[in-house]
Amino acid sequence: MRMALELASRATQATSPNPKVGCVIVKHGSPIGEGWTQPVGQAHAEVQALRDAAARGHDVRGATAYVTLEPCSHFGRTPPCANALIDAGIGRVVAALQDANPRVAGRGLDLLRTAGISVDCGLLAEQAREMNIGFFKRMETGRPWVRMKVAASLDGRTALPNGNSQWITGLDARQDGHFWRARADAILTGIGTVLADDPQMNVRGINISPQPRKFVLDSNLRISTAAKLLQHGGATVVCATAEIEKRSALQSVGAEVLLLRDQVGRVDLKELMLELGRRQVNELHVEAGAKLNGALIEQGCVDELLVYLAPKLLGDGAGLFDLPELSTLDQAKKLIFHEVSKVGDAIRILARFA
Amino acid sequence: MRMALELASRATQATSPNPKVGCVIVKHGSPIGEGWTQPVGQAHAEVQALRDAAARGHDVRGATAYVTLEPCSHFGRTPPCANALIDAGIGRVVAALQDANPRVAGRGLDLLRTAGISVDCGLLAEQAREMNIGFFKRMETGRPWVRMKVAASLDGRTALPNGNSQWITGLDARQDGHFWRARADAILTGIGTVLADDPQMNVRGINISPQPRKFVLDSNLRISTAAKLLQHGGATVVCATAEIEKRSALQSVGAEVLLLRDQVGRVDLKELMLELGRRQVNELHVEAGAKLNGALIEQGCVDELLVYLAPKLLGDGAGLFDLPELSTLDQAKKLIFHEVSKVGDAIRILARFA
Repeated sequence: MRMALELASRATQATSPNPKVGCVIVKHGSPIGEGWTQPVGQAHAEVQALRDAAARGHDVRGATAYVTLEPCSHFGRTPPCANALIDAGIGRVVAALQDANPRVAGRGLDLLRTAGISVDCGLLAEQAREMNIGFFKRMETGRPWVRMKVAASLDGRTALPNGNSQWITGLDARQDGHFWRARADAILTGIGTVLADDPQMNVRGINISPQPRKFVLDSNLRISTAAKLLQHGGATVVCATAEIEKRSALQSVGAEVLLLRDQVGRVDLKELMLELGRRQVNELHVEAGAKLNGALIEQGCVDELLVYLAPKLLGDGAGLFDLPELSTLDQAKKLIFHEVSKVGDAIRILARFA
Repeated sequence: MRMALELASRATQATSPNPKVGCVIVKHGSPIGEGWTQPVGQAHAEVQALRDAAARGHDVRGATAYVTLEPCSHFGRTPPCANALIDAGIGRVVAALQDANPRVAGRGLDLLRTAGISVDCGLLAEQAREMNIGFFKRMETGRPWVRMKVAASLDGRTALPNGNSQWITGLDARQDGHFWRARADAILTGIGTVLADDPQMNVRGINISPQPRKFVLDSNLRISTAAKLLQHGGATVVCATAEIEKRSALQSVGAEVLLLRDQVGRVDLKELMLELGRRQVNELHVEAGAKLNGALIEQGCVDELLVYLAPKLLGDGAGLFDLPELSTLDQAKKLIFHEVSKVGDAIRILARFA
């Protein structure tokens, strides 16, 4: 199963919105076929592994298939993998965990069992879930897994009082940041960041296609049609206003304008998350300022913080998150430190809301 | 030498102001004697190792002594260790590094060489230096190694806007903090912290004797004679005022009052560091508020930050260090992350000024 997980990690972001799955077919203790999910619309891991075994001249009848996710049971863009395993004469299937997709959700395993195949499920389930954490989040809640990236000095400053923030972290941490952008289906930023830094908000230094979609939260449509992140398509401006003229101007440069207004006239953040879920965004990467960061946290929209701490002290300056003032410490937002590591000269912290 | 370093780590804080040293005597590839520095005034590591070999019935003539610091060459509180090794007939000495004490500084090794003993120096020098980092700092600069401890939320807050700060971190991190207090010769805090929290500023939960000395920076002698940290002796109030009456009151409860005034009427922090060096403080542990923390950093008095980050977000509140406002990022105080680890549910960061 570890080998299957390793194979799954070879699947590219182009599999999205499908989960990344790995499959190893083992006979007499030796792996005879290996596969991982191909770009969306192409073969899933199981079919790839069966093909690999055939290409290598192996007979898979009676063999065991280790697969990092329950084989699918439905006709989607491809035929069901469970049927492919049955037709090939596989003797036993070991799955890491059950699929959260309501169209599968145990039916794949049932199909295998009904066909007389021995089935086990639960091996290295935690690791398998982590690999597709966004897919599971979306299947279970209809919303994407939201990862919020911030870069700060050790004393928790993201910019100097004069707004200067480029760069807080070194090259290694910034490149690592592009890796995390690349694994997301969409990137969200705020109009404050766009007006201050005019970022491209794309993935650079990593060869991926397609680029993540870009979303800018801009309640009153203050964005310029010349903003860099609008220049290469794939951008959506999310607003709470209906001003026709500005909307047309943005549409004329290829941007989508999405109106999502709450009762008090701001962008409805929870509704935005549901909309992103409907658009099959598994992982959303947020890079914004303290204001939007704080609003998203406050509304419970954030699953994970990706914090880079640079080895420097800035003293005064902008903080990480604008949150309502607390009066007692037990009101603090609680986190769990999921992973801590060094990236170049910086510290990278993955923290999840408890 | 690794074994000698391990032995050195068994030496207690009671060796201070002497460095912690370990010694292994090896003959025919086997360790025949082991020793580490005893409390000040008692035997050094080499003598302990010679005694251990004798007690175990071994003949040390021609043997090799591995020692984590150059054997001393002077009559201090004990006779020179170099002579003890020569007299015992040791054939070879391997030292991790040269002593920084100007009374030794190579003379111990010279003494051994002159006596015909084969001498090597430099094995695992870095680790040996780390073990006595305060001793080396003091010998080289006359000032202690200054370690500043702060506990903050992941978003860099040490207290809520209403001052509430107990507790930011959990029990594990707080106990770990006592371990770091215990390895210091002295603890420094500020009057702001004393007035806000009335801390004891002693070591709890670890059996040590003596307790580190306590220093409170209190320019205008605002401290109450009832302050908890004055109750068990060993406390010095450092001030910039000469008000006789308050001084006498403090002295009458057993506190020392130390007047160290700079030209503008504040406590002279650099002079305080030199005074602590003269008092043989190898490691100074600082636990103070953002104001004193910032002043010490700004004056270049701090070597190392010991930062505990708690898995929570506080939003608004007190920051870690009050520092002058910067206009460009290259003016930031630069650090090197020396060590990052998890302590309970918190992250512990040791960062050194670059």
